[in-house]
Amino acid sequence: MEKPSQDTPWIRLVTPHISQPSLKDNTADIDRLIRGLRKRLDVNGVTVAFSQVNDLARSLKEHHYDVCALVYEDGGAWQVADLFPIGDHPSIYGLAVDLGTSTVVVRLVELQEGETKDETTFLNPQIQLGPDILSRIHFAAQDGGLAQLQNLLLNRLNQEIEELIKRHDLTSPLIAGMAVAGNTTMTHLFLGLDPYGICREPYIPIINRPGLLKAGDLGLGINKEAPVLVFPNVGSYFGGDLISGILASGMTHQREIAFLVDVGTNAEVIIGNQDWLMGCAGAAGPALEGGVASMGMMAGPGVIDKVVIDPETLQFRVRTIEGGPPVGICGSGLIDLVAQLFLAGMIDLRGKFVRAKCGERLIEEEGIPHLVVVSAEESGTGKALTLSQPDIDALIRSKAAMYTILTTIANTVGIPLNSIERFYVAGTFGSYIDPASAITIGMIPDLPLEAYMPLGNTSLKGAVMGLVSARAREEAFRIRDQVTYLELNVNQEFMNLFSAAKFLPHTDRTLFPSVK
Amino acid sequence: MEKPSQDTPWIRLVTPHISQPSLKDNTADIDRLIRGLRKRLDVNGVTVAFSQVNDLARSLKEHHYDVCALVYEDGGAWQVADLFPIGDHPSIYGLAVDLGTSTVVVRLVELQEGETKDETTFLNPQIQLGPDILSRIHFAAQDGGLAQLQNLLLNRLNQEIEELIKRHDLTSPLIAGMAVAGNTTMTHLFLGLDPYGICREPYIPIINRPGLLKAGDLGLGINKEAPVLVFPNVGSYFGGDLISGILASGMTHQREIAFLVDVGTNAEVIIGNQDWLMGCAGAAGPALEGGVASMGMMAGPGVIDKVVIDPETLQFRVRTIEGGPPVGICGSGLIDLVAQLFLAGMIDLRGKFVRAKCGERLIEEEGIPHLVVVSAEESGTGKALTLSQPDIDALIRSKAAMYTILTTIANTVGIPLNSIERFYVAGTFGSYIDPASAITIGMIPDLPLEAYMPLGNTSLKGAVMGLVSARAREEAFRIRDQVTYLELNVNQEFMNLFSAAKFLPHTDRTLFPSVK
Repeated sequence: MEKPSQDTPWIRLVTPHISQPSLKDNTADIDRLIRGLRKRLDVNGVTVAFSQVNDLARSLKEHHYDVCALVYEDGGAWQVADLFPIGDHPSIYGLAVDLGTSTVVVRLVELQEGETKDETTFLNPQIQLGPDILSRIHFAAQDGGLAQLQNLLLNRLNQEIEELIKRHDLTSPLIAGMAVAGNTTMTHLFLGLDPYGICREPYIPIINRPGLLKAGDLGLGINKEAPVLVFPNVGSYFGGDLISGILASGMTHQREIAFLVDVGTNAEVIIGNQDWLMGCAGAAGPALEGGVASMGMMAGPGVIDKVVIDPETLQFRVRTIEGGPPVGICGSGLIDLVAQLFLAGMIDLRGKFVRAKCGERLIEEEGIPHLVVVSAEESGTGKALTLSQPDIDALIRSKAAMYTILTTIANTVGIPLNSIERFYVAGTFGSYIDPASAITIGMIPDLPLEAYMPLGNTSLKGAVMGLVSARAREEAFRIRDQVTYLELNVNQEFMNLFSAAKFLPHTDRTLFPSVK
Repeated sequence: MEKPSQDTPWIRLVTPHISQPSLKDNTADIDRLIRGLRKRLDVNGVTVAFSQVNDLARSLKEHHYDVCALVYEDGGAWQVADLFPIGDHPSIYGLAVDLGTSTVVVRLVELQEGETKDETTFLNPQIQLGPDILSRIHFAAQDGGLAQLQNLLLNRLNQEIEELIKRHDLTSPLIAGMAVAGNTTMTHLFLGLDPYGICREPYIPIINRPGLLKAGDLGLGINKEAPVLVFPNVGSYFGGDLISGILASGMTHQREIAFLVDVGTNAEVIIGNQDWLMGCAGAAGPALEGGVASMGMMAGPGVIDKVVIDPETLQFRVRTIEGGPPVGICGSGLIDLVAQLFLAGMIDLRGKFVRAKCGERLIEEEGIPHLVVVSAEESGTGKALTLSQPDIDALIRSKAAMYTILTTIANTVGIPLNSIERFYVAGTFGSYIDPASAITIGMIPDLPLEAYMPLGNTSLKGAVMGLVSARAREEAFRIRDQVTYLELNVNQEFMNLFSAAKFLPHTDRTLFPSVK
């Protein structure tokens, strides 16, 4: 008899010992199956959903009671999801999903060993109905809008799942579970829940803890009875993707106080350790992601991700992804560029172009100063790639917002910002940011560079953990309950901090001793 | 804070204290509702089915969080079924159903006080597809047969429910629960579960403990989210109606050893007390119900339910239901008739007509002896009502089967049959049987008449108990687990006992000292 350890998978394929029916043992089919599973799992709570009774009984008889059972644990009881003939020795799989507003990532995982088998990434097709969270919430309020948003996503997701199934020569019943981490709005849209309250004071979602659903109830193209773990949220602006990210960071197992920061349109910040967690989210604007600048674009071939300016010659060296001629700049490249411009004296501490230094690179378009970063001859588009004064201003507002949020949350818990020992940067985008450049522009505190650790897609990593481990799944809900959400009321103090942070790197240079 | 006592109803309407959403308390709608209910019910386990999330959230907002909640307890957790505006002060109702092979009885009960409001009885419409259990099981095996049987019943049941709702000026959402007790086959057909295994060795039903279902999943015309308690069975021939009957009899709370007997086509017998229970069921044949005799019919106006024969004059006095001219005889009348014929010496101890005593009443039809019970002139049909020798033979086989089953089960537990202190007779039909007559023909043991207690429709009574009381519902499942089912293998010893019981009252007259 196997004692379930805390780390046992919560989705399992087990082989119960089911005795053959006889006149001496007239226990009914379903009760016989439950009895066998109780013995095998050494637990009392084994349940079968009524909707499955006929199918499972048929399968039991068809395979002469020689079956293995797909089971999953929910609220302390094991739920029977499916039966397979014992001779097939099947492996079961799960899908971890990072449900982003822009990008969705799906990872295929073998469930017994927890091994990653494949991964696929696609644009969230809801973009065609609304580019951002707010526009989708508005679209959902239209007649049939919510269903349309949900279906777009589910259909696309199902296409990708079908592809994965084909590619690995599987069948949909073998996809036995799913874990989904997304922000609160994406989660509501995925579940077909009205997101109306999310963007209106007092910002109340429909649900914080969706818990386990059935794949069939959502129309997902995997085993109909497979459990779908939806990561819980703390509120409208603190979603399951962050809970998943905290889980993945491991910060809740450490004594040191750490920051976990997801840099994006929203600056999402968590501070804490094994004993406590505080989180907040505030609008940073899309500038940090390169989304505002006219030359800004998402990372891809030909996109500038690193810039170096020689302080003597003022020559620009740019690195592009895959090395081709430059076509635009991504967020990390933009941060580099502005940091280098500042260090070279080509912009001043307010971020304004210094004409004397910029020289011929500075041009005017429609009366607005632009700096030529890549000339038309060198560019991959045939046109010069330029950075305008408003582009810089937007970036500075965004970095100031980020720094102010970090300062505010650190002040709230009474921890000096510069004493933080670990600074985890979440998100694929975050991984590309050069911390030195981010410090130079005063976006993040002036910590030793080794304090900064990019973690990649923590939302996806946490989803995988929740999918394969009972302990991790439990921890996700514990994390949710532990997070104190700091409401960033934009008061006078916040505005003062924000104003002081709107300089490069800051009005208070003592905060950034390393920037020279 | 109210402590749930063991006798609290398990379906309840409660008023949670739900605080209004605010910026300081951004808990999601559903989690807010759950929090309020946890506080109100003083329990941790409160759950909302995913399928209801949108509706409940809408209702909460619509009524400004000022609602009362319909909740029911399932497996230790309270499930939210519905919300009502708090101002309406609604009462909630439930339906208890005795799901018989021939007759279905539905009782409307107010759930807070447990008060019966109404009752309706109708023929099980499945009769048109198969008169008895076996023929319905065969019909269910045809293509679409199972669904046809289920739909016939559900449609008729829904008609009756609609009538009840109208009659009491209710609405279907206020019918907040149902409890159904039926034999194993009727239960399977009600649930749409394949009854194939029930009548084939080794006689394995699909399910023993269906537990709680949702009314909506069965297509019942009450609150869609209302729980439907389906009484568990012990096996193919020991159904939820008997579990419900045991519950209603109260025998599991008594020190005295009691019999509980349901007399019908199947003789269903339970023996036990507060410490143990043994049950068995055996075919007794339809003769006891009057179903075989040519003049036999179900109880109704003009049907003979009592017969007295003057031992001196051999004059017959018959009593009919509602007093009109006789049209037939029901089971209890038949038992009376045969007992009286025996006491008058008109049949001998083998049940054969004694020509000398019967005189002109004895006629022959197609070579078979018939006794004229009611002449053509006195009968309500214009034809003589007669009892044939084969009618008596069938009744004797049936009563012998009943007595043998009682003897066998008493022998098995080592209790002398005549030492039983209580003998509960279940079933509407059983209530009409005159114990003195049943003793005279040797159908039941020769106990003091006060030991016999007719209980009426125990299946319905137990269903009501299970519907309104958490403790009774729990006890039903405990009873199920406690019953040891005695398989009546028809071996030589059984056949010997049976042969000895095929006399009036018995070959061993010392067993029936009161019969003279």
